[in-house]
Amino acid sequence: MSPNDRSNTASDSRERTRAEVLAAIRAEPEIARIDLAVRTGVSPATITAITQEMIRAGLIEEVASEAGRSGGRGRPRVSLKLRGAAHLIAGIKVSFRTLSIVLIDFEGKMLAEDTRPLSAPRLSPEGLLTDIRHLLADATARIGRSTADISGLGIGLAGTIDAVSGFVHWSPSLTERNVHLRDMFEAALPMPVFIDNDANLVAKAEQLFGEAKDVRDFIVVTIEQGVGMGIVINGEIFRGTRGCGAEFGHTKVHLDGALCRCGQRGCLEAYVADYALLREADISLPVNPGLPPERRLATLFEAARRGDPTARSITQRASRMFAMGLANLVNIFDPSLLILSGERMSHDFLYSDEVLAAMHDAVVQVDAPPPEVKIHKWGDQMWARGAAAFAVEGVSEIAVRRLAQNV
Amino acid sequence: MSPNDRSNTASDSRERTRAEVLAAIRAEPEIARIDLAVRTGVSPATITAITQEMIRAGLIEEVASEAGRSGGRGRPRVSLKLRGAAHLIAGIKVSFRTLSIVLIDFEGKMLAEDTRPLSAPRLSPEGLLTDIRHLLADATARIGRSTADISGLGIGLAGTIDAVSGFVHWSPSLTERNVHLRDMFEAALPMPVFIDNDANLVAKAEQLFGEAKDVRDFIVVTIEQGVGMGIVINGEIFRGTRGCGAEFGHTKVHLDGALCRCGQRGCLEAYVADYALLREADISLPVNPGLPPERRLATLFEAARRGDPTARSITQRASRMFAMGLANLVNIFDPSLLILSGERMSHDFLYSDEVLAAMHDAVVQVDAPPPEVKIHKWGDQMWARGAAAFAVEGVSEIAVRRLAQNV
Repeated sequence: MSPNDRSNTASDSRERTRAEVLAAIRAEPEIARIDLAVRTGVSPATITAITQEMIRAGLIEEVASEAGRSGGRGRPRVSLKLRGAAHLIAGIKVSFRTLSIVLIDFEGKMLAEDTRPLSAPRLSPEGLLTDIRHLLADATARIGRSTADISGLGIGLAGTIDAVSGFVHWSPSLTERNVHLRDMFEAALPMPVFIDNDANLVAKAEQLFGEAKDVRDFIVVTIEQGVGMGIVINGEIFRGTRGCGAEFGHTKVHLDGALCRCGQRGCLEAYVADYALLREADISLPVNPGLPPERRLATLFEAARRGDPTARSITQRASRMFAMGLANLVNIFDPSLLILSGERMSHDFLYSDEVLAAMHDAVVQVDAPPPEVKIHKWGDQMWARGAAAFAVEGVSEIAVRRLAQNV
Repeated sequence: MSPNDRSNTASDSRERTRAEVLAAIRAEPEIARIDLAVRTGVSPATITAITQEMIRAGLIEEVASEAGRSGGRGRPRVSLKLRGAAHLIAGIKVSFRTLSIVLIDFEGKMLAEDTRPLSAPRLSPEGLLTDIRHLLADATARIGRSTADISGLGIGLAGTIDAVSGFVHWSPSLTERNVHLRDMFEAALPMPVFIDNDANLVAKAEQLFGEAKDVRDFIVVTIEQGVGMGIVINGEIFRGTRGCGAEFGHTKVHLDGALCRCGQRGCLEAYVADYALLREADISLPVNPGLPPERRLATLFEAARRGDPTARSITQRASRMFAMGLANLVNIFDPSLLILSGERMSHDFLYSDEVLAAMHDAVVQVDAPPPEVKIHKWGDQMWARGAAAFAVEGVSEIAVRRLAQNV
């Protein structure tokens, strides 16, 4: 090991300690130095030194804590918290037809939010950049700031995305494959950019402000145009080796089964996605193919509710395939919590009591309670908040790296 | 937080630091104190104190290291390594018809191995204990030791097992469900006992002495009587919340499909296990049902090789279902390495080139190399070594807890 290697490794170790300390501060509204030492296993002397650096760098601040006073006597204990004003953070969710944005401060306080139409459902990377540029300018202007004030931008979009390298293997929102989207956006925008699969960002949002607070292992299945999945193991998003994991919608539920938009056969999506339902409805139901998809779907669901046998056969097959797919996830991950999440869960055929009962029946039977299932309908703003939370982590990492290198 | 809570947490933190240090020593044949400090991020002063404790406790020892000498000059650097004589460890694999044992020292050096018949394929917990007692007594006697000298016993068996609590929800080797097997064995034997699903122990063996050294994320699929899976994420075995995850053999590959021994329909095992193949062969092939299963299977495989259309149809369906199941694992986990492992992989219909090609075709297509697939045929001794390695970790944990409490 050369002296150079060693000093890099020592700097890595300093960085890791600082990252743990900042993460522990971020995890609580406020925390005393002594609790920080206990929580992180770092010595109180080191905690004092590191937090002093962070205060000087403007990342955190001291607050007088009421919690530390025992029985109202004694002087108030001093705690630490993130300094909201340290950074302005933006999170954007790219949907099928819309872009949603939130602006938050470093503490996570919401400063602004907006949703507007995309200029087209599928865009070139340059086209998406233009839409995002306008959205950033307008959203920051509304709070008297500018794009240049943003310290970090998180972006979530559907597709197969390597979040570590910011590389988009494929996304339904883009006309091109294999795009170094983060590098391209960072070259054109004044702040660091963090890109991830949107279902991963939903998982992050569920963990930070949703149904999965303090849950270490959980799975989020998102239902939108397609079926997405976010996996959290030991508190961290699991991404696979190439950033290509969690492709729940393209797990196969039938050998040589229905044709999927991905070109393969038997994918779960080919049974439960909107296009899969419409493909069947178009065969045998009197649904006008000239109408927009939403109208045709509404007609199908209405017919199923009325008891039309063909319509019921269509939605029931989708329900049963979805239940089988969910059961497979439970059989593999044995999570404590499974969240079905997304804006477009307006039709309950994918999460009705029957679906959940069918799922339970297909899980390996042991004399222990099955995982809890939560249904969480929410809109694009929550996905954007997940993207912003991802950017907060990224900006924290950059700040911590700077601190560790300056020691 | 009461003062008591705080002191427990501080002891936890001491324990965690010591566990990291011992794990770092275990990971290398030998390691210098300064490298240990760099590797763990623990200060050199603390490393000196902790390693001194461990030397006093007899867990590790100093060795003169040649590696530290630059150009042959200077005095040899002192390194640390595990002390082999510190503990005698046993690992046992419970198979369908046999028990295999290895005895190793604390460094992992093999001292003895043996395999003998189980008194019956399915036993009461007491019956299994009796068989294990005899095996331990005989194996230790052969190296001039006794059962009382064993510091830890690891046991791997098939089934749904919560390794953390040592609770067996269900195992094909036991006549009873819901057995606190570890507690029962520990009450009857003089050493701590560690029990896990056998496929998890294969994963541990692959990680320590097999095909997955230095691989952080990989999956092992085992093919024996049934289909097992071990998942390693970030270097750790992933067990799920209740210890009921990784049930690959009971993921469903066909809605309302073939009946499985578990009572459910469409499980992967119901298409690829021996009983599934024989069920089909018995319908239409001239295979004498009076013969033992191995002979009937051999006849089926021979007929398929000869090109008999029915026999080929039977094995090919199994191949294709297995390929689809493997593809689903890759789509979900995106591992860098997939190992197909086990003693009974004598017939290649589950891992032929065609199977692997079919798997690749059913994986989400990106312009990045697919995971590496390794075929690793090995016998029960390697499973037993995995069980022993699990016990080494358990014994290390106990030793570290003692050290941390005595500080």
